[in-house]
Order: sequence, then C-alpha cells, then structure tokens
Amino acid sequence: MTSEVSVPGFRVGGKRGKKYGLAIAASDATANCSVMATSNKIRAAPVELSLKHAKDNVARCVVISSGNANAFTGKQGKLDAQRMCDLASEPLGFGSEKVIVNSTGIIGQNLEMSEIESLISEVAKDLQTDDSGITDAADAMRTTDSFEKISSRNVEVDGSEVRITGFAKGAGMIAPDLLHATMIAVILTDAYIARDRIDDVLSDAVDLSFNMINVDGDVSTNDMVVLLANGAPGSREVGGSFQKALNDVCLDLAKMIVKDGEGATKLFEVEICGAESLDDAKRTAKSVVRSTLVKTALFGENPNWGRVIAAIGYSGADFDRSRLSLWLRNDRDEVVLVENGKGVALKGTEEIKRAGEILKSEEVRFIADLGLGDFTATAFGCDLGYNYVKVNAEYTT
Amino acid sequence: MTSEVSVPGFRVGGKRGKKYGLAIAASDATANCSVMATSNKIRAAPVELSLKHAKDNVARCVVISSGNANAFTGKQGKLDAQRMCDLASEPLGFGSEKVIVNSTGIIGQNLEMSEIESLISEVAKDLQTDDSGITDAADAMRTTDSFEKISSRNVEVDGSEVRITGFAKGAGMIAPDLLHATMIAVILTDAYIARDRIDDVLSDAVDLSFNMINVDGDVSTNDMVVLLANGAPGSREVGGSFQKALNDVCLDLAKMIVKDGEGATKLFEVEICGAESLDDAKRTAKSVVRSTLVKTALFGENPNWGRVIAAIGYSGADFDRSRLSLWLRNDRDEVVLVENGKGVALKGTEEIKRAGEILKSEEVRFIADLGLGDFTATAFGCDLGYNYVKVNAEYTT
Repeated sequence: MTSEVSVPGFRVGGKRGKKYGLAIAASDATANCSVMATSNKIRAAPVELSLKHAKDNVARCVVISSGNANAFTGKQGKLDAQRMCDLASEPLGFGSEKVIVNSTGIIGQNLEMSEIESLISEVAKDLQTDDSGITDAADAMRTTDSFEKISSRNVEVDGSEVRITGFAKGAGMIAPDLLHATMIAVILTDAYIARDRIDDVLSDAVDLSFNMINVDGDVSTNDMVVLLANGAPGSREVGGSFQKALNDVCLDLAKMIVKDGEGATKLFEVEICGAESLDDAKRTAKSVVRSTLVKTALFGENPNWGRVIAAIGYSGADFDRSRLSLWLRNDRDEVVLVENGKGVALKGTEEIKRAGEILKSEEVRFIADLGLGDFTATAFGCDLGYNYVKVNAEYTT
Repeated sequence: MTSEVSVPGFRVGGKRGKKYGLAIAASDATANCSVMATSNKIRAAPVELSLKHAKDNVARCVVISSGNANAFTGKQGKLDAQRMCDLASEPLGFGSEKVIVNSTGIIGQNLEMSEIESLISEVAKDLQTDDSGITDAADAMRTTDSFEKISSRNVEVDGSEVRITGFAKGAGMIAPDLLHATMIAVILTDAYIARDRIDDVLSDAVDLSFNMINVDGDVSTNDMVVLLANGAPGSREVGGSFQKALNDVCLDLAKMIVKDGEGATKLFEVEICGAESLDDAKRTAKSVVRSTLVKTALFGENPNWGRVIAAIGYSGADFDRSRLSLWLRNDRDEVVLVENGKGVALKGTEEIKRAGEILKSEEVRFIADLGLGDFTATAFGCDLGYNYVKVNAEYTT
C-alpha cells in the first residue's frame, strides 16, 4: 500500500458510531505539541483541559469526538472530557495528561458517554500506521462536513525528508480567530520542532490560514488546531521550507473548510493590497468575506460589487477613496470593477457582463487596492444560499 | 378627515415612479434639525451633503429617493445630490442648503436623474397637510420593505399637546450604528427643541432604538435618521415626557424595520441584564441578534440555545459563567434554558419542549443575566430564512 498521508511514528484511526464519531491520533513517542484554541469566553470543557495538558508543549495523543461539543456542560462536562483522556491513554500506555481532547457538535447538552466509551476502546485497539487511519479519522470528525479534509506535504529538513499531514473538520460556526471557529484541525509531523518554538511555528501558519476564513461569522466554543511533532530531539530544527510547507497544509485545510461551508456552492477569496498596516489588510479582507450581503450576491451570481465596497467601508480600516480599486477574477478572466475611486462596471457595460460571467465559477477572487501602503492579506469565504438555511434551521438538539 | 399622524406645520408627500420612489417632508417655517448618519467610511454623496446642510441645526425640508443609493458615485453623485436639493427647494421657496437629502438602493451606480427630476417636481406640487402625505412618503421610500413604517405619539409639553411622527424604511443592509444601517427614518414634530439640544435629544432616542437593531450585520453607506422640530422658539423646551415619546416612536420604527427585515418571519428581542457596563450589555445583546446561527435556528423554530450562549461568549463582554442564566419568553409562556451556568433545557426535558413551542410565535424574547452588575440593554433582530437568500441573491443591478 502506498503511503501518501500517513506520518512515520504515528498511529491513527477513527470510527463513526450511531450518534457520534471518534478519531484518535497517537504518537509512538512523546511529541512536542502546540494547541491553539478559540477566544470564545465560553470555552468547551475539553478545550480547557487540552490547554492545560499542552502547557508544557508535550503530548502523545489527540482524541476528537463529533456529534456533541461538550460545551457549556458544567461539572459533568469536565468529568466527561477527563474520562475521554483516561480511556484513550490507558490502552495506549501513557498518562492521561498527555492527551489532547476535543469535541464538536451541539452546545449545551451532555455527552452520552456509553457510546463514546465503546468508540474510544474500539478505535484505540485498531490504530493504523498506513493511510487508512488518517482517512478514517478525518471521516469520523465530520459533523455537517460533506467530505473529509486532508492535506499533506513532504519537505526536506537538513537532508532528510519529513512529512506534514493535517486533517480537519468544518463546516459551520466558522469565523476562526484562533484564538477563534467549530473547526478542528490535527496536524502531525515527524519533524523535530523544539518545545519553545512550536507555538510560534503553529501560530505563524494559523494566522495566514484558519484565522482568515469565515463561513457564518459565528465564533465557536470549540475551535482548536493542534500540531504534534514527534521528530527525535537530535534532529536539526525546522526552517523556512518547513514553515512554508506547514503554512501550505494549513491553507489547504482552511480552504477546504470554507469550500465545504454549510450549504456553500462557491469559494471566494478576497485579497487586499495597498493597506496601511497588516491589521488593516486583514480586517478589510475579513469584513468582506463575512458580509451576508456579499455572500448572498455571490450565491445569486449577482455582480452587485457595491456590497463589497460597503463592506470595505465599514471594516474600520483606512483607505484612500480616490485610489480605491477593485477587480474580480476567476481562472480565465479578470475584470476591473472600480478604478481609482470610480465605478467602472456600471449598468449596461461590458465589464458588468463579464463580472456576471466570472461569478458563475466555483472559485472567484476579489482584489481590492486600498491605495495607502504596502500591506496585503487574503481571506477566504463562501456564498450563503438556501442550503445554509436548510442545514442550520434543521440542525437540531 | 381625522388627523392621526400628520404634524402641524408640515406638508408631506410621496410618489413611486417607474424605477424610483420619492418622498418630501417640508416644514412651513424653518425647523431645528438633527441628522445622524452612518459610520461607514464610504458615505453616500447625499449623506455627506446633508451633514453639511445640518451643521447649523436648521432645515426646511427632507427629500428621500429610493431605488438607487447614490453611493460611491463620484463627482456625478455629488452633483446629483445637489440637484435634488435645488429641485426641491426652488418651488418651495427657500435655499437649497435648507434641504436634507438621502437616497437608498443599489450602491455604485449613478442615478438616472430624469425620473428623479420629474418625481421631485410632481411631489413638491402636491404636498399634503393631512395623513395621506405621510402614508405616501412612507410608501415611496420603500425598497425591499413589505409595508410602510409609521409611528406617532402625542405628548403634552407645558400644557399644550404636540405630536411626534416618524416614518422609516428598511429592510436590508441593516446593522445600524448611527453612526451606522440602509435604514432611513424621518421624524417630524411641532414641538420646539433648541438648536443646541436637538442633537442630544435625537441621539438619546437613536441609541436605544435604531442602534440596537440588526437584520444582516451589514452597515450601509446611506443610513440616516433626521429629526425636524418646527415649534416656535417661544415655546417651552421639551422635557422627559417628550423624550420618552420620541424614544417610543424611534423604537416602534426600529422594531418595524426588523420585523420587516428581508425575508423575516419573526422578530426576536435579546434583553441582557446583569452586565458590568452599559457597553457590555449592548455589545452582548447585539452579538446575539447578529448571529447567523441564532437567526437560522429561530427560522427553523429550533430551540438550539447553545448558539445563544456561544454568541454571548464571543461578544467580548465580561460575564460570570457560574451565574449566567438564560430565559426564553413569548406573550404566553416563559421557560428557563440556563440557570446559574447550568443548562436546564436539556434533551428530553419539559423545558426544551416548551422552548420549541415558544419559538413558534412571531415575537420571542431571550433574556440573559450576565451575573455581574446592574446594566441592561435590549437589541432587536429577525430570523434568517430562505426568503432572505432569495431577496438578496436576486436583488440586482
């Protein structure tokens, strides 16, 4: 069997039960670890516990359940999160404080532990070293996701090849600011990353990827990205090419989450350039991808670019109105909508017709130049259509 | 004809043309005036002009067109806004700097002035002193609104009765923070309010009403609330009972806007108490009414209160989790969902069933106690259903 995504030194598995799904990724040796979690002040019990467990930046294993978030579940919730760590660590033979745990699904209801318990014991017994383990884990984590999200890169560190593989779930309550989404991503690598550097390495990647996506503007109680690096301490420290590969894996997963946003039919990217600061660039890009009106226009393939301009206007960022320009692009065409503060794609023009055509693509990109500085940022969003409403009106207790 | 909404000393009228609607409200004498406008940095040309005209807090007339926002329309947009003021003031016999002007509709496209011109001249010739003028004006301002929004109160000031009548339009791009929505409201009164007080009087009312509503989270380029008070300077200053009546008119209109939010089937109120500061109370209430997941749950009559808790959690406001409580109420029943940090309306309970029943009402209220202080605030939102998507995917250039 070819190994395209499995990572040396990790055993992984997952299973979907009647109500819940359960995924485990375990390192054969203690791994260095970084956990980034939601900034929502109602942080779920397992997230709190994971942050405690990750304090010393080491871990052996990640356990994720889907179907119930174990958030806002009081003392019982804490006990249940702890129990998940106990159950996973026992058969694998290490302390429960080495387990990173999280759950995703409905908020405010207690887990039904009997199914969780049997799933953990079944999955723990049947962890795989080949690709099937990763696929099963990615599948088991899904809630409203329509496909598994896996991304992998090989990269050379000091002459030898290491692998980075991430798997993630979306698909709603996604406006990460990790510290924010409920997206959960698990990233495994056999590279060595020092304990005092691993938080920075992960946060650099997350800032450009998971923190720049938006499905519905709601910040979840359970968002979490975890990186386990089990390379032996003797190995050389990772450098720029590793960071680039990690960034790529995170960006792949982030884009998959958006593309599979609840009810989504289109991915759209918003690239801001010419901003006075990085913060302004990010804020503007995120303001546009969050806009409900932009998202519904996109769903309708309606070139109502005034809504993009309005979202830039209320983002709070500075721009030079007289130099503000806006383009729309797909893989075949690019059209100017606004040039130096003046609308170009006016009613009846060739430009507005071409914009309408471009919007029929599954992936489109708006590019806005704020006309002030040199900072750029890109955010990723999806359209909002009838199926988003369907999924979220009916997703139930 | 009984006069229920017309205001002494004002002549009002409106007409819907082929593409545009046009409303005019003119005072017989110079009125004291306050204008509050959107904080969107892309402020429409007529809004900019109105703020200039309102600088000295006097005006004679308000002109509103619907169908095109005249926003992001460059030099021509400025000329068109000025032309609207000229055309309205000429036949009425005062300077164009006494006109408050605004437009609502698509952003980024220039007005077709020929229809605007003929509508202004027709409406200006046919202003009414009776109730029909107000009704026609409220009708002419509508874009995606499904009904006219008019509210009126009589109140005694120093022994004599004055009237306050407001009319407004919604129904999308509504997240006012006036300085934010495109909602436009015109409020007329025959009371006397001094020029140096009228801004404060209006802003007190707006803060509790228009600034606490949310349809879609998008802040418009054209939001505006204008108050004209044409009472003679000899009259006694208005006091608390007038302020209360003005607040009520604004709140009535704000709630009508939300109730008629694009595609909305339900109005929901979020009352926050126990906040540590007024700012925290407002921020929490607004966070919940903006949440797409809360809005879709509401549309689905799905008692998924965890989404409300999550929106409280990411609002940024402080709360005492161990004392956090949440109730749901309609006009017949009230049910506790969370009590002192513990979920009560759990799966299978009587509470969750009653919550589901309550959500079938057209108007519901969530009440949350943050458990920290004495500050309270209430925000107003609507559900998000298939028709919101329909309206906004198809609302077109």
